Amino acid sequence: MTDPIRPTDDGARRQAARLLSQARHAVLGVRGDGPPGLSRVAVLPVGADLLLLVSELSRHTRALDADPDCALLIGEPGTGDPLAAARLSLELRAEAADKAAHREAWLAWHPGAALYYDFADFRLLRLVMRSGFLVGGFGRAFALSRADLENCRPTA
Amino acid sequence: MTDPIRPTDDGARRQAARLLSQARHAVLGVRGDGPPGLSRVAVLPVGADLLLLVSELSRHTRALDADPDCALLIGEPGTGDPLAAARLSLELRAEAADKAAHREAWLAWHPGAALYYDFADFRLLRLVMRSGFLVGGFGRAFALSRADLENCRPTA
Repeated sequence: MTDPIRPTDDGARRQAARLLSQARHAVLGVRGDGPPGLSRVAVLPVGADLLLLVSELSRHTRALDADPDCALLIGEPGTGDPLAAARLSLELRAEAADKAAHREAWLAWHPGAALYYDFADFRLLRLVMRSGFLVGGFGRAFALSRADLENCRPTA
Repeated sequence: MTDPIRPTDDGARRQAARLLSQARHAVLGVRGDGPPGLSRVAVLPVGADLLLLVSELSRHTRALDADPDCALLIGEPGTGDPLAAARLSLELRAEAADKAAHREAWLAWHPGAALYYDFADFRLLRLVMRSGFLVGGFGRAFALSRADLENCRPTA
């Protein structure tokens, strides 16, 4: 068997940075006593990190309060084979973010959130990226560090 | 704050059964030492369970061998708001499945897999469903048991 993880190159860094910089939604994975908790969430990329607006009512909010280590899968499949579409999985750690300071940017990225952004039971979290794993298509996988994404300009 | 989880009714059971029965791809969450491992996978629903074809080279295969407790998020967003689209998260446990016995059904569901289904380094797993959580749209959440999905006929 050959190792499917290729040496990380600038093409992989740019592809990952593009997926990250364009992300509006993602699948969030949180830890608990049993299997991971998975949910679809709205996100806003900020450099190599992502902001996450959470409701106090959500199961993932309680899980992140108990254990801030989490993961995101970014990159929605298009109309073709979903296994051929590029996707980026990230390991991150949640910390509190300033909801008022990011209000304008969040609503520019998610205009529909104007209906509930200011509700008292919604909080903003910053998911600090620690490492990433890019699957650029069938058999094309790359490990990425935070530096790989911080210092890279996405391709258009 | 009001509890967003509503009493499970036949409408929720049918919506969940439809998402499950139509699933071709999903996001898989596996456990490890750190954050959950997330990956996009192809699946084949079989009753309340799902079959999963895994490569020995994949990170999630090694994780499932070490800890078979896992999760799936089912329901791809369409062209509208992804947070308004229904999705089903499942808690499952992986066990070995008979690859030869399910060959015809797998290839009918995933014709492109004919290129690699018979490779010796691909195995078939059965993800046995234990419980589910349906988000039928904004603020519509339902807890589901295995019996809720086993005994339900999906709506068309």
